[in-house]
Amino acid sequence: MTAVIHALNWRYATKKYDPSKTVPAETLERILEAARLSATSSGLQPFEVLVVTNPELRAKIKAVGWDQTQYTDCSHLLVFAAWDDITPERINMMFDLTNEVRGTVNEGWENYRQMLTGIAAQRGQEGNYQSAARQAYIALGSAMIAAAFEKVDSTPMEGFDPAAVDEILGLQARHLRSVVVLALGYRAAEGDWLVDLKKVRRSRENFITEVK
Amino acid sequence: MTAVIHALNWRYATKKYDPSKTVPAETLERILEAARLSATSSGLQPFEVLVVTNPELRAKIKAVGWDQTQYTDCSHLLVFAAWDDITPERINMMFDLTNEVRGTVNEGWENYRQMLTGIAAQRGQEGNYQSAARQAYIALGSAMIAAAFEKVDSTPMEGFDPAAVDEILGLQARHLRSVVVLALGYRAAEGDWLVDLKKVRRSRENFITEVK
Repeated sequence: MTAVIHALNWRYATKKYDPSKTVPAETLERILEAARLSATSSGLQPFEVLVVTNPELRAKIKAVGWDQTQYTDCSHLLVFAAWDDITPERINMMFDLTNEVRGTVNEGWENYRQMLTGIAAQRGQEGNYQSAARQAYIALGSAMIAAAFEKVDSTPMEGFDPAAVDEILGLQARHLRSVVVLALGYRAAEGDWLVDLKKVRRSRENFITEVK
Repeated sequence: MTAVIHALNWRYATKKYDPSKTVPAETLERILEAARLSATSSGLQPFEVLVVTNPELRAKIKAVGWDQTQYTDCSHLLVFAAWDDITPERINMMFDLTNEVRGTVNEGWENYRQMLTGIAAQRGQEGNYQSAARQAYIALGSAMIAAAFEKVDSTPMEGFDPAAVDEILGLQARHLRSVVVLALGYRAAEGDWLVDLKKVRRSRENFITEVK
């Protein structure tokens, strides 16, 4: 078994955390770095990650999150917040950064910048947000694998009221919208109903189709 | 640097493949297995993966995919196709499978089945498809990391006409919709404009916010 498959088999959606255990700062950084390095469409990285440790804010999120204990008991709560729109300013910010890092300006790349700006304008704000939200899940996937490599437990969570979480974290003013949360921490010694149950996935033949 | 961060730094969106090189079957299986084992919301796995090697179909996809050469020159073309709806039948299929694998029926789980069925009914077909499509990106992220661990090049691609790809692959009849593609293979020795350029990501401070 390869290391990646081992990590994916090791992880599970932790249901009960030990609130006394904290993910070390260096370990957390490696998980965040995996999210930051993840691929995104046209390299836009159209989302940000909030690392929420403030207990009052986490209690408020729990209250709009079906009262799930992971929101308050985990070590760090990562909130993936997508751009609420893909504006020309945001596209230019990433294309300008690219030119700066690579030290080059090139005609093909500048044409692509114009094309992408046109596509985003045509798609409109809601379509742009939906596209941005999808990209956040790539980074979510990377962060879950990175956490598993570090033997850090995690729980991907969609069970919350996004508008309420946006309000709690002041995301609207930053033109962001909460999409998905990843709790990070260490499983409790007792009381996690899922920990000993088998992972369930459809069989290869019910998941993969070969088109030859 | 950890193995995951190394893999994420190693990979890039390959622009030109060597069409004479094929990913070995066992290697491909490990990449597909990483996609299959990926987490999804409520464990539904609301998508499938098509592994397209048929040259005629790949030429047709290229024609509706901005004529990008990766569609035809890569070794294997993975098409992530999301459920077009989250129906009670599909929810029951996964919940029944879970009971079968775990050999248990439990009241909390059965209540959750009912709740989820209600949520999906309320959200409607388009909302369910959008939710399913997001989950496919988690598996896309896993597959990219798994490929990098195998030193297999990959290209995540959204640049195609989804309705046309659905038609080419007969997805509508299977109640699936194409969402994103991952080309797999080996970079060409020459002619890839991106291969030697620096990876560009926003700095940690422009990507991560700590809420203490």
